[in-house]
Amino acid sequence: MTGQTATKQTESISPPRTLEWRGDLSGLLVLLDQTKLPGEITFIDCRDIETVWQAIKKLSVRGAPAIGVAAAYGVVIGMQNSADADTTTFDSQLKQTCDYLAGSRPTAINLFWALDRMQRCATNCADQPSAVRLQNLLDEAKAIEAEDQEMCAAMGRCGAELLTNGQTVLTHCNAGGLATAGDGTALSVFFAAAEAGKEIHVYADETRPLLQGARLTTWELQQRGIPCTLICDSVAGWAMKEDRVDAVVTGADRIAGNGDAANKIGTYSVALLAKIHGIPFYVAAPSSTFDLSLSSGEQIPIEERLPEEVTEGFGFRTAPADVGVYNPAFDVTPAELISAIITEKGLIEPVNAERIREVLDWSS
Amino acid sequence: MTGQTATKQTESISPPRTLEWRGDLSGLLVLLDQTKLPGEITFIDCRDIETVWQAIKKLSVRGAPAIGVAAAYGVVIGMQNSADADTTTFDSQLKQTCDYLAGSRPTAINLFWALDRMQRCATNCADQPSAVRLQNLLDEAKAIEAEDQEMCAAMGRCGAELLTNGQTVLTHCNAGGLATAGDGTALSVFFAAAEAGKEIHVYADETRPLLQGARLTTWELQQRGIPCTLICDSVAGWAMKEDRVDAVVTGADRIAGNGDAANKIGTYSVALLAKIHGIPFYVAAPSSTFDLSLSSGEQIPIEERLPEEVTEGFGFRTAPADVGVYNPAFDVTPAELISAIITEKGLIEPVNAERIREVLDWSS
Repeated sequence: MTGQTATKQTESISPPRTLEWRGDLSGLLVLLDQTKLPGEITFIDCRDIETVWQAIKKLSVRGAPAIGVAAAYGVVIGMQNSADADTTTFDSQLKQTCDYLAGSRPTAINLFWALDRMQRCATNCADQPSAVRLQNLLDEAKAIEAEDQEMCAAMGRCGAELLTNGQTVLTHCNAGGLATAGDGTALSVFFAAAEAGKEIHVYADETRPLLQGARLTTWELQQRGIPCTLICDSVAGWAMKEDRVDAVVTGADRIAGNGDAANKIGTYSVALLAKIHGIPFYVAAPSSTFDLSLSSGEQIPIEERLPEEVTEGFGFRTAPADVGVYNPAFDVTPAELISAIITEKGLIEPVNAERIREVLDWSS
Repeated sequence: MTGQTATKQTESISPPRTLEWRGDLSGLLVLLDQTKLPGEITFIDCRDIETVWQAIKKLSVRGAPAIGVAAAYGVVIGMQNSADADTTTFDSQLKQTCDYLAGSRPTAINLFWALDRMQRCATNCADQPSAVRLQNLLDEAKAIEAEDQEMCAAMGRCGAELLTNGQTVLTHCNAGGLATAGDGTALSVFFAAAEAGKEIHVYADETRPLLQGARLTTWELQQRGIPCTLICDSVAGWAMKEDRVDAVVTGADRIAGNGDAANKIGTYSVALLAKIHGIPFYVAAPSSTFDLSLSSGEQIPIEERLPEEVTEGFGFRTAPADVGVYNPAFDVTPAELISAIITEKGLIEPVNAERIREVLDWSS
């Protein structure tokens, strides 16, 4: 019965879009302000790159793939005044724009991947007038968005095979449609499983300090009719001990060449606890999340964020003044704790350098 | 230098008392309202047992030993009108009072231990006039409080031996002076180590959903000049991986005869993560926390609390309406994950049924 309800709700409710380009070359990027969810559905109109930068920095748009798409459109916005510029000025402005956007958040590789791709696009048409190059940049950003949507669908199809009817799956943070231009990474697996008629139940870690699980994941699952239960992060291990969890699926922000995966802080513990309880731990991530220039996760830079996220995260102070806080935004899960990585190109299993290159079909 | 500062602050600051009996037989129990800390220092005047019951239920007073002491004084309050009652009426009223208070929270054994002891006290002087029996009950409650203070000091001395100068220790929830009538259980170890001149640094898990670590533990440590760093619960495992944690010390709410220990939700995960990282995991608890009638932790009842603690814990809603929530207040850490139990009677190491009975010197 739950599965039928799910299907019905999927058809009837259309969630607001995570991000959307409106208009032509002189258009704007409209971002759903995820910091206000689920209480308010409000949007941010980005008409300059400072607004894009702030939206990424403050997590109004978040999730590795969505950051990449937002940054790509951010490049277009940063170049809108350069349609009549000479080639040298155009290239200089492009570099400045990309460098600026690259400084918004350090961990998610998709940000740098998207900026690199935009720069390559401009380089490939360096002999064209700036107006043409600008149009090419907009087309490239739209292509990145469209590919992201298709990648989500492909990851969903690939990962749904791993789940069976009646299973309970745990996820950490939000790796849903809100984290991508499409159906999400981890959540695309749940959506695809549900669409294939499998009844699944999701345990969502609330994901302190910013509660992406409580605010965003449960909201997305509700909108798509997937039954879910919200838990505090500290409950995950106990829920496993109580045999409430059959599998874990999370997203990733950057995956090194050996399969070590950076993701929201707390993922490492969840993966380790899953391993000990004999529960498979899957990471769902598109190929753009891989950083083959890094041989291991130790080389992934970990963003440390402000203490106030922990001490004043709810509008008032919940800890004494001047208390020291350690607030890393991410941790790194070693490849040996990951049962498989679900990508749009297929399943990486076992997780090691050879298999990664084989599935991604990239040369070293 | 840090250690010297600690000593100075210990001498100069007198924190408000967790609980205090004021007056004679017709007096009242004054409780520090821990739900308001650290923002406000306010007190609850308990002149009837309903107020005591509510204070325990709502966690205005919390921590296994403090609940026991509060319940003992609660019995006195419940019997204040029975000084002139005949023996049968007195006994009936006593049973009713104890049964009522026993229903406030199910997991902490110290609650039942204190109520049993108060009933035994009344039974032992059943041939006396009710006025005398009432006075004996007040004396017994004061004895429980005084013993609790001494137990904290003894646990501190015992546990401080386990820590060495310069170590960083992690704790979960609040097992400090606020959880007892004295210096606390886990925190008494830190205080005693600091007083012995050892410089220690404490990582405090914030402890969702009610943030006892963020609100109470850091506050107590600051007041006593012990350097501390607040982390989200999900950071604990990663901090261990990063070699930031040398030892873990927590309290307990009930310990079964085999050493399985119920404590605040999340403790099980912390203990398991500590084990895998080769970090000793200690539990500090007085003998009143042991329930030798239970052969294992599977028999300990786990309190499940309201969803709103998770979804509206900060004064406004942080999750969608009607989302399902699983909110157990405790979990059980198996004895094999506990390196040693620190008691007022000495160290239980290794943790097993034989050694527990040997140290506690109890017959089965």
